[in-house]
Amino acid sequence: MSAYILDVAMLPGGWARAVRVSVDAAGWITGVEPDAAPHPDDQHLRGIVIPGMANVHSHAFQRAMAGRAERGGTGDFWRWRDVMYALAARLGPDALRAVAAHLYAEMLEAGYTAVAEFHYLHAAVDDDGPRCMSAALVDAAADAGIGLTLLPVLYQRAGFDGGPLAPAQQGFALDTARYLALLDALAAKHNAQMTTGVAFHSLRAVDAAALNEVVAAIDDDTPVHIHVAEQRREVDDCQQHLGARPVQWLLDNQPVDPRWCLVHATHTDPGELEGIVSRGASVGLCPSTEANLGDGFFALEHFEALGGRWAIGSDSQVCIDPTEELRWLEYGARLQAQRRCIVSSAQAPHAGARLYRAALAGADGLLGRRVGAIAPGYRADLVALDDRHPLHAGLDGDARLDCHVFASPPRTVRDVICGGRWRVRDGRHEHIDALAHAARSVQGAFDA
Amino acid sequence: MSAYILDVAMLPGGWARAVRVSVDAAGWITGVEPDAAPHPDDQHLRGIVIPGMANVHSHAFQRAMAGRAERGGTGDFWRWRDVMYALAARLGPDALRAVAAHLYAEMLEAGYTAVAEFHYLHAAVDDDGPRCMSAALVDAAADAGIGLTLLPVLYQRAGFDGGPLAPAQQGFALDTARYLALLDALAAKHNAQMTTGVAFHSLRAVDAAALNEVVAAIDDDTPVHIHVAEQRREVDDCQQHLGARPVQWLLDNQPVDPRWCLVHATHTDPGELEGIVSRGASVGLCPSTEANLGDGFFALEHFEALGGRWAIGSDSQVCIDPTEELRWLEYGARLQAQRRCIVSSAQAPHAGARLYRAALAGADGLLGRRVGAIAPGYRADLVALDDRHPLHAGLDGDARLDCHVFASPPRTVRDVICGGRWRVRDGRHEHIDALAHAARSVQGAFDA
Repeated sequence: MSAYILDVAMLPGGWARAVRVSVDAAGWITGVEPDAAPHPDDQHLRGIVIPGMANVHSHAFQRAMAGRAERGGTGDFWRWRDVMYALAARLGPDALRAVAAHLYAEMLEAGYTAVAEFHYLHAAVDDDGPRCMSAALVDAAADAGIGLTLLPVLYQRAGFDGGPLAPAQQGFALDTARYLALLDALAAKHNAQMTTGVAFHSLRAVDAAALNEVVAAIDDDTPVHIHVAEQRREVDDCQQHLGARPVQWLLDNQPVDPRWCLVHATHTDPGELEGIVSRGASVGLCPSTEANLGDGFFALEHFEALGGRWAIGSDSQVCIDPTEELRWLEYGARLQAQRRCIVSSAQAPHAGARLYRAALAGADGLLGRRVGAIAPGYRADLVALDDRHPLHAGLDGDARLDCHVFASPPRTVRDVICGGRWRVRDGRHEHIDALAHAARSVQGAFDA
Repeated sequence: MSAYILDVAMLPGGWARAVRVSVDAAGWITGVEPDAAPHPDDQHLRGIVIPGMANVHSHAFQRAMAGRAERGGTGDFWRWRDVMYALAARLGPDALRAVAAHLYAEMLEAGYTAVAEFHYLHAAVDDDGPRCMSAALVDAAADAGIGLTLLPVLYQRAGFDGGPLAPAQQGFALDTARYLALLDALAAKHNAQMTTGVAFHSLRAVDAAALNEVVAAIDDDTPVHIHVAEQRREVDDCQQHLGARPVQWLLDNQPVDPRWCLVHATHTDPGELEGIVSRGASVGLCPSTEANLGDGFFALEHFEALGGRWAIGSDSQVCIDPTEELRWLEYGARLQAQRRCIVSSAQAPHAGARLYRAALAGADGLLGRRVGAIAPGYRADLVALDDRHPLHAGLDGDARLDCHVFASPPRTVRDVICGGRWRVRDGRHEHIDALAHAARSVQGAFDA
């Protein structure tokens, strides 16, 4: 047992002062007491404390190509994908661990405290490859101290026509039996900081039979993630081969429910959006990646009006900052509507606070354990914001969160507790220099 | 005379190594020698060195409301403007200096080395108000050590119908004679780090007679800045009262040329864009502010195809980071076109490098002195990028600049020389703590 005293904290019922948060040895919150008297052994978190943000969609290895695919020859999503394939083919477990561990430490410095890793790099040197590559990510998360939901990805064909995988895709493939065996092996490693879920790469990469077999094999509380409707071509191909748009096909043929994360859902029609909302599924939005890849705009304003659930992901890792994701998600909607404050409402007038809370709530259920609130039963994932910047003077509560999302100066995240452990102090992760050193060696080798 | 040795530098003709940059006592570059042997007294700038970015559109005082106008009641541009008016009414010269000096130091930390201040807060306690308020900005720029182009703004009426100013706007007003006297008084203060230009708030706030009188009174090399076509309502009102869209009216009635900065130009038709290009004027784009205010998308792809000139500005100060402005400018175009790498071409394949160079070139001529190149006759404004982050391993030249613009981790700007003086070391401005302290006191008073 340990305890933290928080000067000002965002609790589910509102803002509170002098909040005492008790944490058990495994990192779960056991008690939350506002207006508390500190005990002598309590640790003190200064400033405004908010729940750590969940990152519901990460391909860690792509950090090694961030900023490296911005030249003319990579003018569309499919050509960008070729660059990504070339990188994937060169990564073994040691390199993957080094890149991911540094990235996860950067996520913690930015205020992400949980990450869902959508993991399809199953290739490695021997038959035990899939387990080695998954273990590399589990080790990387432990190196950095971030909460991990590992989502091994089922990836079996090149497209809706059932054609064989291209050579560059063969390292992603697993047959269904081996996939289920990998899930079992990982389940044996579950601990307070690591759990697993399942992921289907996309409807183009997995057929209905395999999808049904995996969905039938998992528990009712296992999260299910899938890329869907990111590109128009994918929507057209799906319509041609399956007779329905991809989101509609999922709604019609799968038990889509609140544990499902539909990643991107960029090209959806109003009926599909209504279907997602009626089933309680969440959309995994990745604003910086969707912008970088030119995917198109998600219909945020309409989805919000329907009461839809959404969360955010760093996806291709061009941006490791939840505030940039949130503000540009809202900005995309503002620019299209030519109005301000799209997500705010009479009940939630502060746009920044509303964005932050919506992303937390939309992630609840997608990670296989409770994260995203300072409340008993949740992970003790706490982010303390630096209040020494002039912009923060005089601000409190939801107004402070507006400022955090829309005008965050650099170095605003000061301290980060993840799973009850202090990982970032004064803006720096405890192991950032050593992790950077290891990642730099790997990166240099790729580019050589 | 002093000299710097740059490990790797972006010169007008391409990248070079071991570049010796000689600087005179006033801060101008007098010589640039690649492959040079260092002299014993030379200062060493490590890593990749690029020209500092020009910020062509700043309203410094608005930093004090960044993140504070994101609630439901500020749902459009015009309601946001009311919040801004309320702040403007409370600012005297001391408060303005404190807010601006800290902001300018933050700009230097982010890699901006020159700023054009579009300044309309002429009110103050006595008849000498306009001079006091301008002096506050001149002093603030000197406090931080940034290059300043002060643009006093002519602002005379509430709208195209010639109605009187609202009470909240009266502090912005100057009659033309007093305006020209203010310009004369400021001209006497010009020095190597400070010069002036003229600005017209907008066609709605200035009539043709006043515009003509000021344009006739200035030298041929004085920069001229004007807000134009930011909002649809402004375009409609202009068409109704002047019989033309605002950009078209300017092209038809003013000597628009390469010293003119047309700020925003959001709502322009293809003929207007062609007119801007044929006259060599530059567009002042402010992507984060235009997004925050829901202005709409600038027609970047079409303007680039025409060979148009543009530069960037931080405007309302919600974002102090040239890389975020540049990448989201490009991202807006990608999201609309559903393609990648909009600005790159066969001649300039690297999108990030192309964006950075375009913004530098587009600012040349708008600031009243030569900035934006590491070349003789230009200001010695040098930004050294930190290369210790793993992402930077193995990258050089334009590829390194792509990474800077599209995947910049925090703290990437390491050292900044402005006007030949070392202002930022290891990411921190030399006076940041003292300037933050002063700004915090002012900010706290506003919000109290």
